[in-house]
Amino acid sequence: MAKGKERRIGNPSGFKDTLPAEKLLFNRLMEDLSQVVESYGFSPIDTPEIEWLDTLRGHDDSGGKLIYRVFNGYENPEEGANLDSVMDKGLRFDLTVPLARFYGQHANELPLPFRRYHWGKVFRGEAAQTGKGRYREFYQFDADTVGATGAMADAETAAMLADAMQKLGLPAVVKINNRRLLDSLVEVGGIDDQEVKSRVFTAIDKFDKIGKEKVVAEIAEATSPEFGDLVDQYLSVSGAELEKIEQLRELLGSSPAAQEALENLGGIISMLHASGYEGRVAVSPEIVRGLGYYTGAIFETYVEGFEQFGSVASGGRYDRLIADLGGPNQPAVGASFGVSRILDVLQSSGWESDSQTPAKVFMVNFSPKLSDVYFSVATELRQNNIPTQVYSDTKKVGQQLKYASELGIPYAILIGEDEHAKGTATIRNLETREQEEVAMSNLVATLIRLLAKE
Amino acid sequence: MAKGKERRIGNPSGFKDTLPAEKLLFNRLMEDLSQVVESYGFSPIDTPEIEWLDTLRGHDDSGGKLIYRVFNGYENPEEGANLDSVMDKGLRFDLTVPLARFYGQHANELPLPFRRYHWGKVFRGEAAQTGKGRYREFYQFDADTVGATGAMADAETAAMLADAMQKLGLPAVVKINNRRLLDSLVEVGGIDDQEVKSRVFTAIDKFDKIGKEKVVAEIAEATSPEFGDLVDQYLSVSGAELEKIEQLRELLGSSPAAQEALENLGGIISMLHASGYEGRVAVSPEIVRGLGYYTGAIFETYVEGFEQFGSVASGGRYDRLIADLGGPNQPAVGASFGVSRILDVLQSSGWESDSQTPAKVFMVNFSPKLSDVYFSVATELRQNNIPTQVYSDTKKVGQQLKYASELGIPYAILIGEDEHAKGTATIRNLETREQEEVAMSNLVATLIRLLAKE
Repeated sequence: MAKGKERRIGNPSGFKDTLPAEKLLFNRLMEDLSQVVESYGFSPIDTPEIEWLDTLRGHDDSGGKLIYRVFNGYENPEEGANLDSVMDKGLRFDLTVPLARFYGQHANELPLPFRRYHWGKVFRGEAAQTGKGRYREFYQFDADTVGATGAMADAETAAMLADAMQKLGLPAVVKINNRRLLDSLVEVGGIDDQEVKSRVFTAIDKFDKIGKEKVVAEIAEATSPEFGDLVDQYLSVSGAELEKIEQLRELLGSSPAAQEALENLGGIISMLHASGYEGRVAVSPEIVRGLGYYTGAIFETYVEGFEQFGSVASGGRYDRLIADLGGPNQPAVGASFGVSRILDVLQSSGWESDSQTPAKVFMVNFSPKLSDVYFSVATELRQNNIPTQVYSDTKKVGQQLKYASELGIPYAILIGEDEHAKGTATIRNLETREQEEVAMSNLVATLIRLLAKE
Repeated sequence: MAKGKERRIGNPSGFKDTLPAEKLLFNRLMEDLSQVVESYGFSPIDTPEIEWLDTLRGHDDSGGKLIYRVFNGYENPEEGANLDSVMDKGLRFDLTVPLARFYGQHANELPLPFRRYHWGKVFRGEAAQTGKGRYREFYQFDADTVGATGAMADAETAAMLADAMQKLGLPAVVKINNRRLLDSLVEVGGIDDQEVKSRVFTAIDKFDKIGKEKVVAEIAEATSPEFGDLVDQYLSVSGAELEKIEQLRELLGSSPAAQEALENLGGIISMLHASGYEGRVAVSPEIVRGLGYYTGAIFETYVEGFEQFGSVASGGRYDRLIADLGGPNQPAVGASFGVSRILDVLQSSGWESDSQTPAKVFMVNFSPKLSDVYFSVATELRQNNIPTQVYSDTKKVGQQLKYASELGIPYAILIGEDEHAKGTATIRNLETREQEEVAMSNLVATLIRLLAKE
């Protein structure tokens, strides 16, 4: 216990417990996302949560102060020791730095292109805003392709995002842009000051929040009315996806960067439209994806009716990042699902589980004398893929049924001494309170039929 | 970068990367175990990996030096600061301490009995023995019932272990004993010195490794020839499970502790035998489960033919532990699956995956001109639950097929310009190199048929 302090209880701010109802939803989400990315041949990997601080900091210490350092008792430094020399390990703050380290380390054992997905916890020592869903320990789910240059891998990333939303039952649009198109916009506009470029992109990035007019006004003020007009035209392209590409070509086609970007976008849209994704993907010149490390196609995913939640899954092409992080010089493209945000949307759209348990049947325990009967009936149900909980001890029947109802178990089975003597069981619907008595020999079949209707 | 040191690369000793083939097996294992424990109504939960050091240390600092402490940049102490006062958080070293903290914190929101399962990473700053599979960061998988006293929950724990082994295709025996029976053995033998008791239990715990004769000799030397004889008889019970219980009753029945233990064992065996577990469970007076925190029934699971791997899943009743760890005073029983050990056994017994990817079909990419065709065929296959990888760029066909074979994908689809013009596709078995040309309209049906045979 820390000297001179109260013993701390509970969990530290920014670190979250997940109770059964929410965890059951989370597991369903991970299963669905895994199934979708596996359908594209992404392979699962795992890496340690602890890496060398050198790896996490990279060449430019971009993780900075948010990195949690770790050390154990054996490494416990004398007070006054140089901390940097002792505490040389830390907790990962994303899954991209580990991918670069992992790919660099195992390149000889891995295929190229290498498609991996990875989900797990990441840690950020930022100010926690638990009310707003910002935690210090949270999950990420990433799927990336290392070593592929063409539009095929880009298009697959967009399709994977659209498939995931469909799998989750969420109507969504995957917005697609290309960073080279944004580069061409400032190039054609004659903006070459790096600081001004950043202000332009930052302004465009606010499109979804403040609307086109304010973005254009902000940019016109920071640059010139003429460049404001160009941005206005850029953000006003409309019509079918291929028409938007045509309008962008007219506007920016003089720039080699734009030609490259529009060829990429054209290829992506062509593949997606040939494959039934029309209406679920959109060329969106307004998306920027921050000022980060993207070099080509970029993606953001908005759920219809939940646009205010922001993008729930996003990504893009980052052809220089893996080398920058100390890995081999390989192009890459991928996307990240915003796990917490998707859970928020799912819960807001009725995916909420009213059950705290996977059990579908609850076995009332009338008497220790019948333990063997309860146990063998429960075993038979489990063998028929019906998750079953037997009440562990004997308590009043009403209390047992209340317990099962509160857990959200749909059916209870009652076998008292009378029923046992007759060879029957009573099945009780815990929501409607209706019950029926069935012969033991019909119990499994009846439950399978009832549960199929749930 | 640490001053005056080489930049560290790779991952730190004791921290392990998991490559796709192994991770695919791991995921299958987690799915199988989750399905089994869910069939008993255990609900999943999640807790943070970071807890207050006070919570992890408990009242007696039992975690000791193996606990990794964590702190982030914002909490970075001045050199020379009192480390204990700043670094007040640590990484969990098991899932039991978090269960006690979690149950204590959420008791009002949780049902009683509360059945939870939990799997995740734990961290121990011990000397790493990577060659022997001892890591500093590894997975645990626990299932426990809090708040149940009877033999029912004990029997379910044993049955769950047996079911898990069956689900994994491993012939196994769940050995069952009761700590009170061991207490009665020393009681009946008149051993009351705590230190001698410990030596007796430690000796019995070596039964599997050194055999009965050496155990008895060791104990006789440490105590008396008479007590050695008693231990010999205790370890010699044999026959059917209920006969063993009868022999133990004759030997130790004068002790109230033995009566209690044998009633519990009798109830457990009776339920298990009534439910078809005969032959898969065994009353085993020789199991001790260390000198730890167990208070009643105890379990260990050995896989036939892999006994030298030790117990692959174990647990027991620990009615005082949750209170000792600072939680409420609730009885509990549960078990832990030895994830790494089970993976070792599975891999040794032929569960080895020869595939590094979930993809079942590989689409050769002959030309960017056919991108839309490849993409739409792949989309159709995915919609039919056939995981499909398209080669991202165009490369020599031989190289593409080699890539797919190395990944372990069973089938390739070849659609060149000729095939496309004819409306056909060639399906190639990448192992046998046999191939057949089918009409595009038959492609999905043919692949479903071929993959069903895999």
